[in-house]
Amino acid sequence: MTERVISLPSAKGSRRYPIYLDPELGAERRIAEEVERRFGGARIGIVTDETVAKLHLARVAEALTARGLPVASVVVADGEGSKSLETAGRVLDALAAAGIDRDGLLLALGGGVVGDLGGFVASIYLRGIAYAQLPTTLLAQVDSSVGGKTAVNMAAGKNLCGTFYQPSFVYADLTTLGTLPARDLSAGLAELTKHAVIADELLLEQIEREAERLRAGDPVLLAEVIDRSVAIKAAVVSADEEERDTVDPLGGRARLNFGHTVGHAIESASHDRGAPLRHGESVALGMLAAARVGARLGLGDATLEERLARLWPRLGLPSELDRVLDELFSGQGEALARWLEVDKKRRGEVVRFVLVDRVGSTRLHRLPIGRVVELVRTHV
Amino acid sequence: MTERVISLPSAKGSRRYPIYLDPELGAERRIAEEVERRFGGARIGIVTDETVAKLHLARVAEALTARGLPVASVVVADGEGSKSLETAGRVLDALAAAGIDRDGLLLALGGGVVGDLGGFVASIYLRGIAYAQLPTTLLAQVDSSVGGKTAVNMAAGKNLCGTFYQPSFVYADLTTLGTLPARDLSAGLAELTKHAVIADELLLEQIEREAERLRAGDPVLLAEVIDRSVAIKAAVVSADEEERDTVDPLGGRARLNFGHTVGHAIESASHDRGAPLRHGESVALGMLAAARVGARLGLGDATLEERLARLWPRLGLPSELDRVLDELFSGQGEALARWLEVDKKRRGEVVRFVLVDRVGSTRLHRLPIGRVVELVRTHV
Repeated sequence: MTERVISLPSAKGSRRYPIYLDPELGAERRIAEEVERRFGGARIGIVTDETVAKLHLARVAEALTARGLPVASVVVADGEGSKSLETAGRVLDALAAAGIDRDGLLLALGGGVVGDLGGFVASIYLRGIAYAQLPTTLLAQVDSSVGGKTAVNMAAGKNLCGTFYQPSFVYADLTTLGTLPARDLSAGLAELTKHAVIADELLLEQIEREAERLRAGDPVLLAEVIDRSVAIKAAVVSADEEERDTVDPLGGRARLNFGHTVGHAIESASHDRGAPLRHGESVALGMLAAARVGARLGLGDATLEERLARLWPRLGLPSELDRVLDELFSGQGEALARWLEVDKKRRGEVVRFVLVDRVGSTRLHRLPIGRVVELVRTHV
Repeated sequence: MTERVISLPSAKGSRRYPIYLDPELGAERRIAEEVERRFGGARIGIVTDETVAKLHLARVAEALTARGLPVASVVVADGEGSKSLETAGRVLDALAAAGIDRDGLLLALGGGVVGDLGGFVASIYLRGIAYAQLPTTLLAQVDSSVGGKTAVNMAAGKNLCGTFYQPSFVYADLTTLGTLPARDLSAGLAELTKHAVIADELLLEQIEREAERLRAGDPVLLAEVIDRSVAIKAAVVSADEEERDTVDPLGGRARLNFGHTVGHAIESASHDRGAPLRHGESVALGMLAAARVGARLGLGDATLEERLARLWPRLGLPSELDRVLDELFSGQGEALARWLEVDKKRRGEVVRFVLVDRVGSTRLHRLPIGRVVELVRTHV
């Protein structure tokens, strides 16, 4: 088992917490040990979704009750729809009904939706109780469980409501990846590769060498690359927890948005068209677009687009950027521009675009939305 | 104008912010100046309730727009019912619709309900934007606007959901007290007097000397005693922002709960009976009960109950504890015990009871609920 202790600033000053990456069977018993050691005597809530409840809830809950820890579970519906203030209210009511007090603990067992929702609820229940992330998807393990961003969606947009709130620990049982649909594993590999692209040439080379084993879900290899990926995200986030840094020429926390500007537009448009792409798939395509923008501006790595386009199919990710753009936006630049404008990171008509000048090094570049569209869409 | 700068620990480390107490006409212009100086260029939201909107919203909003500051107002229904997750959602939607971004500011214009709700919304909108309190009731000016506790209610109980979140500044226009119903002014004086009882004999003597002028709402005198009261609350809170202190023999932040154990039971029971007492009125009676418990245990100031019972009518507050207990609980100890048990501060069957051994000095005493009832109810 890999244990990485990361240090992040938080509401109570700088806060250190461990991230455990456990590739062995029986992780639920070690999770229960960790909970007992840190929170013995506390009442424990578990929030999870319907799919994860079927696959993993009984195993985790039984390991806890076997140690005499009192557990109450709340199961929410699958999918992004549960990231709502209304569902948060239902989870809060359930915690109150279970008699969980200020010394209690909330476990978020699931993917990014459950993690974002559970962290948010923990941060506001009784003005904040302890929580731990038990991520069961690769995306949650490499990305959303690290960084302390919690969120629910509003009618006006995704993640418009939330808090910055760090967990007491993160425990990733990597054997849960064996039950993850292949497409979701691939989507997680896209975010993992993004961390390599913005910060670590050697990790990118390792991913390129072992793409097939990663796609097959080898837990020991995954533990290794997830650990590296988490270290990168933690380093970026700890320098700029609240994404306020506008001075750092590398872009502070904003560099984690590499591939996300066009990626979000693709994701939203694909949902709108009724043929939804995964977040990770959209970001994979967005990274191709961002690499193209950098190359055409003469500011970015000229070979990056082709390098990633070769890697994506080996990881099970889409790589045909122009075809997808044609399908989603009917070849019309204005349609892409409109989706870019709904992105909440827009300020005025200019976006802060993350460019990779060479693998491992980023910079922020302010670009009018029209210019982004032109650079992505013009066939050269 | 009085300006007191207090320093409180917060999410971003220790945070200093000023509390302005302004007894002069035209405070709205000085509020607008303060907003422009600190948040020039930002979009500004104002949350208020229907009554305060009629009395003060136009004046404040116009002073802001006169300085070219873009303002969007959200008016919620009067009363405790607006301290809900649902109303918070409506305010969040309104902020999003008004295009308020991370650099925006939310002004909470009103009493404790608006302050608690507004602070909560500011703490979760876009993971936290700046906010300022513009308290228009005495209770909010002396109490709820200081300390950084934000909250909404859940079905299971009051204030079960919230955050610790400090405002950028507090600006109390004391002329708003001229429009406050006499009963609400009196209720505020109860909490103000509580601060004197737990921390400051000289302030209590001043209140006793000038009770009639205070009850008449003299703004200059009020500025003086509110300032002292705020200083007491700030000192207590800054030492123990999150009410975690169980070591401090004086009770840490818990000492602010003096009078609140029995006070809450009285308040809840009076609502249940359809003849609601104000929070401050209930706390005034609860202070009499707490003084009685201390005296009967031989641990508290033996003259305090009588001293406060003499003061309360001069401040317009109820002082007939036994009559109220008889009415609300029909002379049955079990009824009082049941209301004490629903108080969220209960742990098991024992309450942490705040005693005043002499004015200015408190201690925490663990008491079984049955013993509290016995000490309060036995006629000696």
